[in-house]
Amino acid sequence: MEAMRRIPDATVDRLPVYLRVLDDLTASRSTTVSSEQLADLAGMNAAKVRKDLSYLGSYGVRGVGYDVDYLRFEITSQLGLGQQSGVAIVGLGNLGRALANHAGLTVRGFPVTALLDTDARKVGTSVSGVTISHLDALSPDDGIAIGIITTPPGVAQDVADRLVAAGVRAILNFAPIVLTVPEHVALRSVDVTLELQVLSFYASHQGSGTAAAHGS
Amino acid sequence: MEAMRRIPDATVDRLPVYLRVLDDLTASRSTTVSSEQLADLAGMNAAKVRKDLSYLGSYGVRGVGYDVDYLRFEITSQLGLGQQSGVAIVGLGNLGRALANHAGLTVRGFPVTALLDTDARKVGTSVSGVTISHLDALSPDDGIAIGIITTPPGVAQDVADRLVAAGVRAILNFAPIVLTVPEHVALRSVDVTLELQVLSFYASHQGSGTAAAHGS
Repeated sequence: MEAMRRIPDATVDRLPVYLRVLDDLTASRSTTVSSEQLADLAGMNAAKVRKDLSYLGSYGVRGVGYDVDYLRFEITSQLGLGQQSGVAIVGLGNLGRALANHAGLTVRGFPVTALLDTDARKVGTSVSGVTISHLDALSPDDGIAIGIITTPPGVAQDVADRLVAAGVRAILNFAPIVLTVPEHVALRSVDVTLELQVLSFYASHQGSGTAAAHGS
Repeated sequence: MEAMRRIPDATVDRLPVYLRVLDDLTASRSTTVSSEQLADLAGMNAAKVRKDLSYLGSYGVRGVGYDVDYLRFEITSQLGLGQQSGVAIVGLGNLGRALANHAGLTVRGFPVTALLDTDARKVGTSVSGVTISHLDALSPDDGIAIGIITTPPGVAQDVADRLVAAGVRAILNFAPIVLTVPEHVALRSVDVTLELQVLSFYASHQGSGTAAAHGS
Protein backbone atom coordinates (compact mmCIF):
# COMPACT_ATOMS: atom_id res chain seq x y z
CA MET A 1 0.00 0.00 0.00
CA GLU A 2 1.19 3.46 -0.88
CA ALA A 3 0.12 5.47 2.10
CA MET A 4 2.15 4.47 5.14
CA ARG A 5 1.64 7.77 6.93
CA ARG A 6 -0.41 7.39 10.06
CA ILE A 7 -4.02 8.22 9.21
CA PRO A 8 -5.61 10.43 11.90
CA ASP A 9 -8.36 8.78 13.96
CA ALA A 10 -10.91 11.38 12.85
CA THR A 11 -10.16 10.52 9.20
CA VAL A 12 -10.49 6.79 9.91
CA ASP A 13 -13.93 7.54 11.38
CA ARG A 14 -14.99 9.14 8.09
CA LEU A 15 -13.63 6.51 5.67
CA PRO A 16 -16.68 4.22 6.08
CA VAL A 17 -18.95 7.18 5.32
CA TYR A 18 -17.07 7.86 2.08
CA LEU A 19 -17.23 4.16 1.27
CA ARG A 20 -21.01 4.13 1.67
CA VAL A 21 -21.34 7.14 -0.65
CA LEU A 22 -19.01 5.53 -3.21
CA ASP A 23 -21.09 2.32 -3.09
CA ASP A 24 -24.19 4.39 -3.87
CA LEU A 25 -22.36 6.14 -6.72
CA THR A 26 -21.33 2.77 -8.18
CA ALA A 27 -24.93 1.59 -7.94
CA SER A 28 -25.97 4.67 -9.94
CA ARG A 29 -23.17 3.97 -12.49
CA SER A 30 -21.10 7.07 -11.74
CA THR A 31 -17.42 6.52 -12.55
CA THR A 32 -15.94 9.78 -11.24
CA VAL A 33 -16.83 12.07 -8.36
CA SER A 34 -15.63 15.56 -7.42
CA SER A 35 -14.64 16.36 -3.84
CA GLU A 36 -17.60 18.78 -3.75
CA GLN A 37 -20.08 16.04 -4.74
CA LEU A 38 -18.52 13.57 -2.32
CA ALA A 39 -18.63 16.16 0.47
CA ASP A 40 -22.25 16.98 -0.28
CA LEU A 41 -23.33 13.32 -0.27
CA ALA A 42 -21.36 12.59 2.91
CA GLY A 43 -22.61 15.70 4.73
CA MET A 44 -19.13 17.23 5.13
CA ASN A 45 -17.11 20.03 3.56
CA ALA A 46 -15.01 19.58 0.44
CA ALA A 47 -11.72 20.76 1.96
CA LYS A 48 -11.97 18.11 4.68
CA VAL A 49 -12.77 15.43 2.10
CA ARG A 50 -9.69 16.37 0.03
CA LYS A 51 -7.51 16.35 3.16
CA ASP A 52 -8.86 12.98 4.30
CA LEU A 53 -8.32 11.37 0.91
CA SER A 54 -4.79 12.78 0.69
CA TYR A 55 -3.88 10.51 3.64
CA LEU A 56 -4.72 7.59 1.36
CA GLY A 57 -2.35 9.01 -1.24
CA SER A 58 -5.37 9.89 -3.38
CA TYR A 59 -5.50 13.23 -5.14
CA GLY A 60 -8.36 14.02 -7.49
CA VAL A 61 -7.67 15.22 -11.01
CA ARG A 62 -8.57 18.91 -11.41
CA GLY A 63 -11.80 19.27 -13.39
CA VAL A 64 -12.41 15.50 -13.31
CA GLY A 65 -12.36 14.44 -9.69
CA TYR A 66 -11.68 11.02 -8.23
CA ASP A 67 -12.09 7.65 -9.90
CA VAL A 68 -14.94 5.99 -7.97
CA ASP A 69 -13.72 2.40 -8.38
CA TYR A 70 -10.13 3.16 -7.44
CA LEU A 71 -11.16 5.18 -4.39
CA ARG A 72 -13.44 2.35 -3.25
CA PHE A 73 -10.56 -0.08 -3.68
CA GLU A 74 -8.21 2.11 -1.65
CA ILE A 75 -10.65 2.67 1.20
CA THR A 76 -11.64 -1.00 1.27
CA SER A 77 -7.93 -1.97 1.51
CA GLN A 78 -7.19 0.57 4.23
CA LEU A 79 -10.16 -0.60 6.28
CA GLY A 80 -8.97 -4.20 5.98
CA LEU A 81 -12.29 -5.19 4.41
CA GLY A 82 -10.70 -7.56 1.89
CA GLN A 83 -11.64 -10.68 3.82
CA GLN A 84 -14.64 -11.56 5.99
CA SER A 85 -14.20 -10.93 9.71
CA GLY A 86 -16.14 -13.29 11.96
CA VAL A 87 -18.18 -11.51 14.63
CA ALA A 88 -19.26 -12.86 18.03
CA ILE A 89 -22.17 -11.24 19.86
CA VAL A 90 -22.06 -11.73 23.63
CA GLY A 91 -25.33 -11.14 25.49
CA LEU A 92 -28.55 -12.07 23.70
CA GLY A 93 -30.97 -9.61 25.26
CA ASN A 94 -33.07 -7.27 23.11
CA LEU A 95 -30.11 -5.43 21.67
CA GLY A 96 -28.02 -8.56 21.07
CA ARG A 97 -30.94 -10.14 19.23
CA ALA A 98 -31.51 -6.99 17.18
CA LEU A 99 -27.86 -7.08 16.07
CA ALA A 100 -27.93 -10.84 15.43
CA ASN A 101 -30.91 -10.25 13.12
CA HIS A 102 -29.14 -7.36 11.33
CA ALA A 103 -28.79 -8.74 7.81
CA GLY A 104 -26.55 -5.84 6.80
CA LEU A 105 -23.61 -7.14 8.84
CA THR A 106 -22.98 -10.18 6.64
CA VAL A 107 -23.44 -8.13 3.47
CA ARG A 108 -20.78 -5.67 4.70
CA GLY A 109 -18.26 -8.44 5.44
CA PHE A 110 -19.00 -9.02 9.11
CA PRO A 111 -20.85 -12.35 9.35
CA VAL A 112 -22.09 -13.16 12.84
CA THR A 113 -20.44 -16.55 13.42
CA ALA A 114 -20.98 -16.92 17.17
CA LEU A 115 -23.68 -15.99 19.68
CA LEU A 116 -22.71 -16.34 23.35
CA ASP A 117 -24.65 -16.03 26.60
CA THR A 118 -24.56 -17.51 30.11
CA ASP A 119 -28.33 -17.93 30.50
CA ALA A 120 -29.14 -21.68 30.39
CA ARG A 121 -32.58 -20.87 28.94
CA LYS A 122 -30.98 -19.17 25.93
CA VAL A 123 -28.05 -21.54 25.29
CA GLY A 124 -29.01 -24.05 22.57
CA THR A 125 -31.68 -21.82 21.01
CA SER A 126 -31.04 -20.05 17.71
CA VAL A 127 -31.23 -16.52 16.33
CA SER A 128 -31.09 -16.03 12.56
CA GLY A 129 -29.80 -19.57 12.12
CA VAL A 130 -26.92 -19.31 14.59
CA THR A 131 -27.14 -21.39 17.79
CA ILE A 132 -26.40 -19.60 21.08
CA SER A 133 -23.42 -21.21 22.88
CA HIS A 134 -22.36 -20.84 26.51
CA LEU A 135 -19.74 -18.12 27.04
CA ASP A 136 -17.47 -20.72 28.68
CA ALA A 137 -17.18 -22.47 25.31
CA LEU A 138 -15.44 -19.43 23.76
CA SER A 139 -12.03 -20.45 22.43
CA PRO A 140 -9.23 -19.11 20.20
CA ASP A 141 -10.16 -21.91 17.78
CA ASP A 142 -13.39 -20.06 16.99
CA GLY A 143 -11.39 -17.62 14.87
CA ILE A 144 -13.44 -14.64 15.94
CA ALA A 145 -12.01 -11.29 14.79
CA ILE A 146 -14.48 -8.89 16.40
CA GLY A 147 -16.53 -9.19 19.58
CA ILE A 148 -19.73 -7.21 20.20
CA ILE A 149 -20.65 -6.82 23.87
CA THR A 150 -24.36 -6.37 24.58
CA THR A 151 -24.35 -7.59 28.19
CA PRO A 152 -25.32 -5.72 31.37
CA PRO A 153 -22.50 -3.36 32.48
CA GLY A 154 -21.58 -5.43 35.54
CA VAL A 155 -20.21 -8.34 33.51
CA ALA A 156 -18.92 -6.42 30.48
CA GLN A 157 -15.28 -6.17 31.63
CA ASP A 158 -15.13 -9.92 32.32
CA VAL A 159 -16.59 -10.59 28.87
CA ALA A 160 -14.03 -8.24 27.30
CA ASP A 161 -11.20 -10.09 29.09
CA ARG A 162 -12.50 -13.42 27.80
CA LEU A 163 -12.81 -12.10 24.25
CA VAL A 164 -9.22 -10.82 24.38
CA ALA A 165 -8.06 -14.20 25.75
CA ALA A 166 -9.81 -15.84 22.80
CA GLY A 167 -7.72 -13.77 20.38
CA VAL A 168 -10.29 -11.14 19.45
CA ARG A 169 -8.52 -8.03 18.10
CA ALA A 170 -11.44 -5.61 18.15
CA ILE A 171 -14.38 -5.01 20.47
CA LEU A 172 -17.56 -2.99 19.94
CA ASN A 173 -19.03 -2.28 23.37
CA PHE A 174 -22.69 -1.38 23.93
CA ALA A 175 -22.59 -1.77 27.73
CA PRO A 176 -22.67 1.60 29.51
CA ILE A 177 -19.27 1.25 31.18
CA VAL A 178 -15.69 2.26 30.33
CA LEU A 179 -13.79 -0.94 29.44
CA THR A 180 -10.06 -1.57 29.68
CA VAL A 181 -8.35 -3.64 26.98
CA PRO A 182 -4.70 -4.27 26.05
CA GLU A 183 -2.98 -1.85 23.64
CA HIS A 184 -3.21 -4.25 20.69
CA VAL A 185 -7.00 -4.55 20.91
CA ALA A 186 -9.16 -1.90 19.24
CA LEU A 187 -12.15 -0.72 21.25
CA ARG A 188 -15.17 1.37 20.31
CA SER A 189 -18.15 2.08 22.51
CA VAL A 190 -21.70 2.95 21.55
CA ASP A 191 -23.79 4.28 24.39
CA VAL A 192 -27.27 5.50 23.54
CA THR A 193 -27.53 7.55 26.74
CA LEU A 194 -24.27 9.37 25.97
CA GLU A 195 -25.52 10.13 22.45
CA LEU A 196 -28.76 11.54 23.88
CA GLN A 197 -26.82 13.68 26.37
CA VAL A 198 -24.68 15.12 23.56
CA LEU A 199 -27.87 15.82 21.57
CA SER A 200 -29.35 17.46 24.65
CA PHE A 201 -26.39 19.85 24.68
CA TYR A 202 -26.99 20.96 21.09
CA ALA A 203 -30.78 21.07 21.51
CA SER A 204 -30.40 23.32 24.55
CA HIS A 205 -27.81 25.59 22.87
CA GLN A 206 -29.92 26.51 19.87
CA GLY A 207 -27.99 28.18 17.10
CA SER A 208 -24.87 26.18 17.93
CA GLY A 209 -25.43 24.33 14.70
CA THR A 210 -25.79 20.69 13.86
CA ALA A 211 -23.95 18.13 15.93
CA ALA A 212 -21.41 16.08 14.06
CA ALA A 213 -22.93 13.05 12.42
CA HIS A 214 -21.55 9.56 13.01
CA GLY A 215 -20.33 10.35 16.47
CA SER A 216 -17.22 12.03 15.12
CA MET B 1 -23.62 30.52 33.17
CA GLU B 2 -20.02 31.56 33.27
CA ALA B 3 -18.61 29.81 30.25
CA MET B 4 -20.03 31.42 27.14
CA ARG B 5 -17.10 30.41 24.97
CA ARG B 6 -18.05 27.93 22.30
CA ILE B 7 -17.25 24.45 23.60
CA PRO B 8 -15.57 22.34 20.90
CA ASP B 9 -17.64 19.41 19.57
CA ALA B 10 -15.00 16.90 20.69
CA THR B 11 -15.24 18.26 24.24
CA VAL B 12 -19.05 18.05 24.16
CA ASP B 13 -18.67 14.39 23.15
CA ARG B 14 -16.63 13.74 26.30
CA LEU B 15 -18.80 15.62 28.83
CA PRO B 16 -21.24 12.69 29.26
CA VAL B 17 -18.29 10.38 29.93
CA TYR B 18 -17.03 12.69 32.69
CA LEU B 19 -20.56 12.89 34.06
CA ARG B 20 -20.80 9.10 34.29
CA VAL B 21 -17.47 8.92 36.15
CA LEU B 22 -18.58 11.73 38.51
CA ASP B 23 -21.85 9.87 39.20
CA ASP B 24 -19.81 6.80 40.15
CA LEU B 25 -17.56 8.92 42.39
CA THR B 26 -20.61 10.38 44.14
CA ALA B 27 -21.97 6.87 44.67
CA SER B 28 -18.67 5.95 46.33
CA ARG B 29 -18.83 9.13 48.48
CA SER B 30 -15.81 10.87 46.94
CA THR B 31 -16.09 14.67 47.24
CA THR B 32 -13.01 15.71 45.23
CA VAL B 33 -11.24 14.25 42.22
CA SER B 34 -7.90 15.06 40.59
CA SER B 35 -7.61 15.44 36.82
CA GLU B 36 -5.37 12.34 36.85
CA GLN B 37 -8.02 10.23 38.61
CA LEU B 38 -10.77 11.56 36.38
CA ALA B 39 -8.64 10.86 33.30
CA ASP B 40 -7.87 7.35 34.48
CA LEU B 41 -11.52 6.52 35.18
CA ALA B 42 -12.66 8.02 31.87
CA GLY B 43 -9.94 6.31 29.84
CA MET B 44 -8.35 9.59 28.67
CA ASN B 45 -5.26 11.63 29.46
CA ALA B 46 -5.12 14.23 32.22
CA ALA B 47 -4.06 17.16 30.03
CA LYS B 48 -7.11 16.66 27.82
CA VAL B 49 -9.39 16.45 30.86
CA ARG B 50 -8.03 19.75 32.23
CA LYS B 51 -8.43 21.41 28.85
CA ASP B 52 -12.00 20.10 28.46
CA LEU B 53 -13.04 21.27 31.92
CA SER B 54 -11.47 24.68 31.37
CA TYR B 55 -14.12 25.28 28.68
CA LEU B 56 -16.69 25.01 31.46
CA GLY B 57 -14.78 27.64 33.40
CA SER B 58 -13.71 24.92 35.84
CA TYR B 59 -10.13 24.86 37.08
CA GLY B 60 -9.10 22.35 39.73
CA VAL B 61 -7.35 23.50 42.90
CA ARG B 62 -3.68 22.43 42.88
CA GLY B 63 -3.15 19.51 45.26
CA VAL B 64 -6.90 19.14 45.85
CA GLY B 65 -8.50 18.72 42.44
CA TYR B 66 -12.07 19.38 41.43
CA ASP B 67 -15.16 19.44 43.62
CA VAL B 68 -17.22 16.44 42.43
CA ASP B 69 -20.65 17.93 43.16
CA TYR B 70 -19.92 21.28 41.57
CA LEU B 71 -18.43 19.67 38.47
CA ARG B 72 -21.50 17.43 38.13
CA PHE B 73 -23.72 20.49 38.44
CA GLU B 74 -21.77 22.36 35.77
CA ILE B 75 -21.77 19.48 33.29
CA THR B 76 -25.44 18.73 33.92
CA SER B 77 -26.29 22.40 33.25
CA GLN B 78 -24.17 22.56 30.10
CA LEU B 79 -25.77 19.40 28.74
CA GLY B 80 -29.24 20.85 29.38
CA LEU B 81 -30.10 17.88 31.57
CA GLY B 82 -31.99 19.97 34.12
CA GLN B 83 -35.40 18.94 32.86
CA GLN B 84 -36.74 15.72 31.36
CA SER B 85 -36.68 15.53 27.56
CA GLY B 86 -39.42 13.43 26.03
CA VAL B 87 -38.17 10.91 23.47
CA ALA B 88 -40.08 9.40 20.53
CA ILE B 89 -38.88 6.16 18.96
CA VAL B 90 -39.94 5.73 15.34
CA GLY B 91 -39.77 2.18 13.95
CA LEU B 92 -40.53 -0.66 16.35
CA GLY B 93 -38.43 -3.43 14.84
CA ASN B 94 -35.88 -5.33 16.95
CA LEU B 95 -33.72 -2.30 17.61
CA GLY B 96 -36.63 0.04 18.32
CA ARG B 97 -38.02 -2.45 20.81
CA ALA B 98 -34.63 -2.91 22.45
CA LEU B 99 -34.40 0.86 22.96
CA ALA B 100 -38.02 1.13 24.15
CA ASN B 101 -37.18 -1.50 26.79
CA HIS B 102 -33.98 0.33 27.82
CA ALA B 103 -34.80 1.30 31.41
CA GLY B 104 -31.68 3.47 31.62
CA LEU B 105 -33.16 6.13 29.34
CA THR B 106 -35.79 7.29 31.83
CA VAL B 107 -33.29 7.19 34.70
CA ARG B 108 -30.96 9.47 32.72
CA GLY B 109 -33.71 12.00 32.01
CA PHE B 110 -34.88 10.77 28.62
CA PRO B 111 -38.28 9.12 29.18
CA VAL B 112 -39.69 7.43 26.08
CA THR B 113 -43.04 9.16 25.75
CA ALA B 114 -44.02 8.11 22.23
CA LEU B 115 -43.60 5.00 20.06
CA LEU B 116 -44.47 5.40 16.39
CA ASP B 117 -44.75 3.00 13.48
CA THR B 118 -46.75 2.65 10.26
CA ASP B 119 -47.39 -1.11 10.54
CA ALA B 120 -51.09 -1.66 11.33
CA ARG B 121 -50.20 -4.88 13.18
CA LYS B 122 -47.99 -2.94 15.61
CA VAL B 123 -50.12 0.18 16.13
CA GLY B 124 -52.19 -0.20 19.29
CA THR B 125 -49.87 -2.74 20.92
CA SER B 126 -47.56 -1.72 23.78
CA VAL B 127 -43.88 -1.91 24.62
CA SER B 128 -42.82 -1.23 28.21
CA GLY B 129 -46.19 0.33 28.97
CA VAL B 130 -46.20 2.77 26.04
CA THR B 131 -48.76 2.20 23.26
CA ILE B 132 -47.49 2.33 19.69
CA SER B 133 -49.22 5.08 17.67
CA HIS B 134 -49.38 5.57 13.93
CA LEU B 135 -46.69 7.90 12.59
CA ASP B 136 -49.43 10.04 10.99
CA ALA B 137 -50.61 10.97 14.50
CA LEU B 138 -47.30 12.73 15.29
CA SER B 139 -47.97 16.36 16.20
CA PRO B 140 -46.18 19.37 17.73
CA ASP B 141 -48.63 18.99 20.66
CA ASP B 142 -46.79 15.80 21.67
CA GLY B 143 -43.98 17.96 23.08
CA ILE B 144 -41.27 15.58 21.90
CA ALA B 145 -37.74 16.96 22.31
CA ILE B 146 -35.71 14.13 20.77
CA GLY B 147 -36.59 11.63 18.05
CA ILE B 148 -34.86 8.28 17.64
CA ILE B 149 -35.09 6.79 14.14
CA THR B 150 -34.90 2.99 13.96
CA THR B 151 -36.66 2.52 10.63
CA PRO B 152 -35.34 0.98 7.41
CA PRO B 153 -33.08 3.45 5.53
CA GLY B 154 -35.56 4.00 2.70
CA VAL B 155 -38.06 5.85 4.88
CA ALA B 156 -35.65 7.47 7.36
CA GLN B 157 -35.44 10.87 5.62
CA ASP B 158 -39.24 11.15 5.48
CA VAL B 159 -39.42 10.26 9.18
CA ALA B 160 -36.76 12.88 9.96
CA ASP B 161 -38.75 15.51 8.03
CA ARG B 162 -41.90 14.64 9.98
CA LEU B 163 -40.05 14.80 13.31
CA VAL B 164 -38.67 18.23 12.42
CA ALA B 165 -42.17 19.40 11.40
CA ALA B 166 -43.41 18.21 14.82
CA GLY B 167 -40.90 20.49 16.53
CA VAL B 168 -38.24 17.94 17.47
CA ARG B 169 -34.91 19.70 18.06
CA ALA B 170 -32.62 16.65 18.10
CA ILE B 171 -32.51 13.36 16.22
CA LEU B 172 -30.56 10.19 16.93
CA ASN B 173 -30.46 8.17 13.72
CA PHE B 174 -29.79 4.43 13.62
CA ALA B 175 -30.77 3.98 9.96
CA PRO B 176 -27.73 3.42 7.71
CA ILE B 177 -28.19 6.54 5.61
CA VAL B 178 -26.94 10.14 5.73
CA LEU B 179 -29.88 12.35 6.75
CA THR B 180 -30.40 16.03 6.01
CA VAL B 181 -31.94 18.24 8.70
CA PRO B 182 -32.28 22.04 9.13
CA GLU B 183 -29.46 23.95 10.85
CA HIS B 184 -31.37 24.32 14.12
CA VAL B 185 -31.85 20.56 14.55
CA ALA B 186 -29.05 18.52 16.13
CA LEU B 187 -28.32 15.18 14.47
CA ARG B 188 -26.22 12.21 15.56
CA SER B 189 -25.98 8.91 13.77
CA VAL B 190 -25.11 5.49 15.15
CA ASP B 191 -24.32 2.94 12.49
CA VAL B 192 -23.09 -0.44 13.68
CA THR B 193 -21.59 -1.30 10.30
CA LEU B 194 -19.55 1.92 10.26
CA GLU B 195 -18.29 1.16 13.78
CA LEU B 196 -17.25 -2.33 12.67
CA GLN B 197 -15.46 -0.92 9.63
CA VAL B 198 -13.51 1.51 11.80
CA LEU B 199 -12.62 -1.38 14.14
CA SER B 200 -11.55 -3.41 11.14
CA PHE B 201 -9.08 -0.64 10.28
CA TYR B 202 -7.44 -0.77 13.70
CA ALA B 203 -7.55 -4.57 13.88
CA SER B 204 -5.80 -4.80 10.50
CA HIS B 205 -3.19 -2.14 11.42
CA GLN B 206 -1.89 -3.83 14.54
CA GLY B 207 0.24 -1.62 16.70
CA SER B 208 -1.74 1.45 15.69
CA GLY B 209 -3.04 1.52 19.24
CA THR B 210 -6.51 1.54 20.66
CA ALA B 211 -9.29 3.20 18.75
CA ALA B 212 -10.93 6.10 20.48
CA ALA B 213 -13.72 5.03 22.78
CA HIS B 214 -17.22 6.50 22.51
CA GLY B 215 -16.97 7.17 18.81
CA SER B 216 -14.93 10.30 19.36
